Amino acid sequence: MKVTEMSKEVFHMTERILAFQPLTSDQAQELTTLGAEVIPADDWETATGITVIFGWHREHGPKVLQNPANTIHWIQTASAGVDYLPLDWIKAHQIRVTNASGAYSGAIAESTIGYLLYFLRGFNESVKNQAGHFWQRPARSDLGLLSNQKIVIYGTGSIGQAIANLLNGFGNYPFGVNRTGHGVTGFQGAVALADDTGLVKDADVVINAMPATSATDHYFGRDYFKHLDGLRVFVNVGRGKSVDEAALMDALLYQNVLHAALDVFETEPLPKTSRLWDYPNVIITPHQTGFAAENTLPIFGYLKDNLTSWTTDHELTVNLVDVSRGY
Amino acid sequence: MKVTEMSKEVFHMTERILAFQPLTSDQAQELTTLGAEVIPADDWETATGITVIFGWHREHGPKVLQNPANTIHWIQTASAGVDYLPLDWIKAHQIRVTNASGAYSGAIAESTIGYLLYFLRGFNESVKNQAGHFWQRPARSDLGLLSNQKIVIYGTGSIGQAIANLLNGFGNYPFGVNRTGHGVTGFQGAVALADDTGLVKDADVVINAMPATSATDHYFGRDYFKHLDGLRVFVNVGRGKSVDEAALMDALLYQNVLHAALDVFETEPLPKTSRLWDYPNVIITPHQTGFAAENTLPIFGYLKDNLTSWTTDHELTVNLVDVSRGY
Repeated sequence: MKVTEMSKEVFHMTERILAFQPLTSDQAQELTTLGAEVIPADDWETATGITVIFGWHREHGPKVLQNPANTIHWIQTASAGVDYLPLDWIKAHQIRVTNASGAYSGAIAESTIGYLLYFLRGFNESVKNQAGHFWQRPARSDLGLLSNQKIVIYGTGSIGQAIANLLNGFGNYPFGVNRTGHGVTGFQGAVALADDTGLVKDADVVINAMPATSATDHYFGRDYFKHLDGLRVFVNVGRGKSVDEAALMDALLYQNVLHAALDVFETEPLPKTSRLWDYPNVIITPHQTGFAAENTLPIFGYLKDNLTSWTTDHELTVNLVDVSRGY
Repeated sequence: MKVTEMSKEVFHMTERILAFQPLTSDQAQELTTLGAEVIPADDWETATGITVIFGWHREHGPKVLQNPANTIHWIQTASAGVDYLPLDWIKAHQIRVTNASGAYSGAIAESTIGYLLYFLRGFNESVKNQAGHFWQRPARSDLGLLSNQKIVIYGTGSIGQAIANLLNGFGNYPFGVNRTGHGVTGFQGAVALADDTGLVKDADVVINAMPATSATDHYFGRDYFKHLDGLRVFVNVGRGKSVDEAALMDALLYQNVLHAALDVFETEPLPKTSRLWDYPNVIITPHQTGFAAENTLPIFGYLKDNLTSWTTDHELTVNLVDVSRGY
């Protein structure tokens, strides 16, 4: 995207990058070599003339953005979702946002396959029986094969595609749900969000990998779950706000949904008092599916590539977010 | 394998099949159509002239075999391993054995991937934290990607190949260990059992998928584990006898091995008093990795195909076991 007239004055300036996201000294040196100045996170309040923010801080970030001593024209997040940013303010001030879409997709996809196998292969029961020293073999018919499940993935972007790609290795070609119903590699078909009812009625597995937008807010609620009759596994690796947790708990109770794997929640951390913790057919992980020792490198790569293209061509080439759309 | 002179007299007889393995009435009818008589498991003691055994029963099987009123010339097992059969007696009486190798491989491979992801993606800790309502995010560096692990699979037969095939879908090409070190599709290389030390020294994951033979008895013992320094996951989906459980427990204690997933045990059911149940970094499943609603059909197919080839060509074409070798 070519920059607008408005922001022309910022070019050929030295970029001053506030790094909320930790950088190694080698990484900081690389940015300096590219002509930027790096401001440590601790200096967020005293530094002036900040032009770029790398990563985010829920309290400090908005203050840096609104401090008249700074001129932020670009935020490079370290996350795929950007719903926690003050998007209205960002849009009004024509600040560009690039995200870390893709950096976590491989890890999220691996965790998702893990969730499915955890329930399909009976580990859920084994773990409970192990605590009581019970050698309790399941009924053969209670265990299933991933290769044989009808799987519907909501969201066919970077995460959805990474999940589909791994499923393909199991001989499974999932269905996708996206905004327009356009086909995507690795999926056997796709429908638009508005047309999903027929598709999910006889699904075995539903996976939410959508970003949080106003269209996805509580999308998985009472009206959704009532169409399901014994869905084997519901997975949420998208955003917590997409699921009405009270409705999901009822769906689990009435067996519209048999098992759920949840990594994201309406409120995070999930409150101690939430009844979800105690559901025997639910696995809860603390927003960690994207974690892996291996995956911080790509994020720094996005910053570097964008800094280079910004400096030379006034473009942000990697993962530019449509701020109006929210992803 | 062509039959020997010795057994020529059995041909053109009607085969009388004792079905320890349950048959549906449709399946029994199919066997009758193929010219066989089906004897229900309950009649094991009173029936005479039994020529074929389908499945096995630990107490009744040997008695049927040794009853002079029967002339058993073929056993079709419903299992991949055949180490529980009276192999010496079977060999001495030139009884053929066909097994169910392949029927369970897909299910075992899926479970194996599930075990690896359970530990690599941190579910082991999540499950414990969930019980206490603890929102405890792991260190990013403690979670790993399956795509990045160095994996060594012992046994490159049907099960080992099925595991390798699924790993390939994660971009992972494992190493194999087999009798001769011959290469196998899906593996990036293989070594002979005697030459494995160098290969496993820096492995992240070791998977045992070998049959139980005298060569594999307690193969994974003190001498083996002492070469490991923080192996991330040890998986046993082969046979329990291959692992010296006391040595494994010490290896877990001294962190030669960090996590273990065990489906088979020296004694099954695993005794209530075994200390293994309480190891926090071990998942125990009760010899169930091969279970799936989908996988009883292939076993009946093996029986039918072998019955057909036996009746027409005096050959057993599917899964003939080398009784001397034990698999």
